[in-house]
Amino acid sequence: MASEVAEKERKILVAVDEGEESSYALSWCLSNIVNENSKDTLVLVYARPPRAVYSTLDGSGEEGRLPGYLFSSDILASMEKYSHEVAECVLEKAHRICKDFNAIKVETKVEHGDPRDVICQVAEKLNVDLVVMGSHGYGLIKRAFLGSVSHHCAQNLKCPVLIVKKPKSNDGN
Amino acid sequence: MASEVAEKERKILVAVDEGEESSYALSWCLSNIVNENSKDTLVLVYARPPRAVYSTLDGSGEEGRLPGYLFSSDILASMEKYSHEVAECVLEKAHRICKDFNAIKVETKVEHGDPRDVICQVAEKLNVDLVVMGSHGYGLIKRAFLGSVSHHCAQNLKCPVLIVKKPKSNDGN
Repeated sequence: MASEVAEKERKILVAVDEGEESSYALSWCLSNIVNENSKDTLVLVYARPPRAVYSTLDGSGEEGRLPGYLFSSDILASMEKYSHEVAECVLEKAHRICKDFNAIKVETKVEHGDPRDVICQVAEKLNVDLVVMGSHGYGLIKRAFLGSVSHHCAQNLKCPVLIVKKPKSNDGN
Repeated sequence: MASEVAEKERKILVAVDEGEESSYALSWCLSNIVNENSKDTLVLVYARPPRAVYSTLDGSGEEGRLPGYLFSSDILASMEKYSHEVAECVLEKAHRICKDFNAIKVETKVEHGDPRDVICQVAEKLNVDLVVMGSHGYGLIKRAFLGSVSHHCAQNLKCPVLIVKKPKSNDGN
């Protein structure tokens, strides 16, 4: 059966964010699901905060927009730059983990939006065989939606969903 | 890494019930997670309806028990026998699937209780590395708790949880 696994060309989506848990989920997937000999492709997906967050905070799109209200365009540009840098950083870390495991083909997808929508949309578009994610929320809205990203994806995705929790650090694994 | 995977002795709990989805989840696990060369142990877990269901229906435990109320002891014995036979049938089918995949060590656990509790308790007791389950409810209370078993387990288990949905039959896989 090992050869059977190796022959398959699976696409495995791994949702990544700034948290330790998503790094752990990625490592777990690499050690437990992916075979070196397989033709698996890992698709690392990172959801950037929706642009709407900025524009809403900025008051644009409102009737009688207040110039300079809350955020100047300079600040908005900084936020956009910061968000871009975070995405770069997260993906660089994820790539480093994949390298450690001597893995397989790795692709990345960065999309603006709610992580729940981004993950489901990319999974569906690429027709992936498996989605791997941490159990917690992703990105900026982590605290507000604790756990709801994985729940949403498990409910809505047609493919298998693997939810990985980072063990307490004193477990030693 | 394939050899790294093979050297691990993983315990993988697969929740089984009467439904097609749990058979599919088991097959998916065997094709995608388990390696022939690995020392993995599959633990098939089946939750039988809690005995409390019968005794409550029977009115026992109530003050001033009504003899013969709802179910006679004959009928209760029949229900118990039926439930036992269902368990046998489910596990036999699961074993057959495992045989098809030429797998690895297989153990079974049958416990009375709410599937959510049974799965979580066995997973914790055996300190399993992964829990695999269909996305829907299990056993008799399937319709009442559609989906809540996997949600409960994903929330409460410390180990990774893989939730597998059976594709629509016209997908051909």
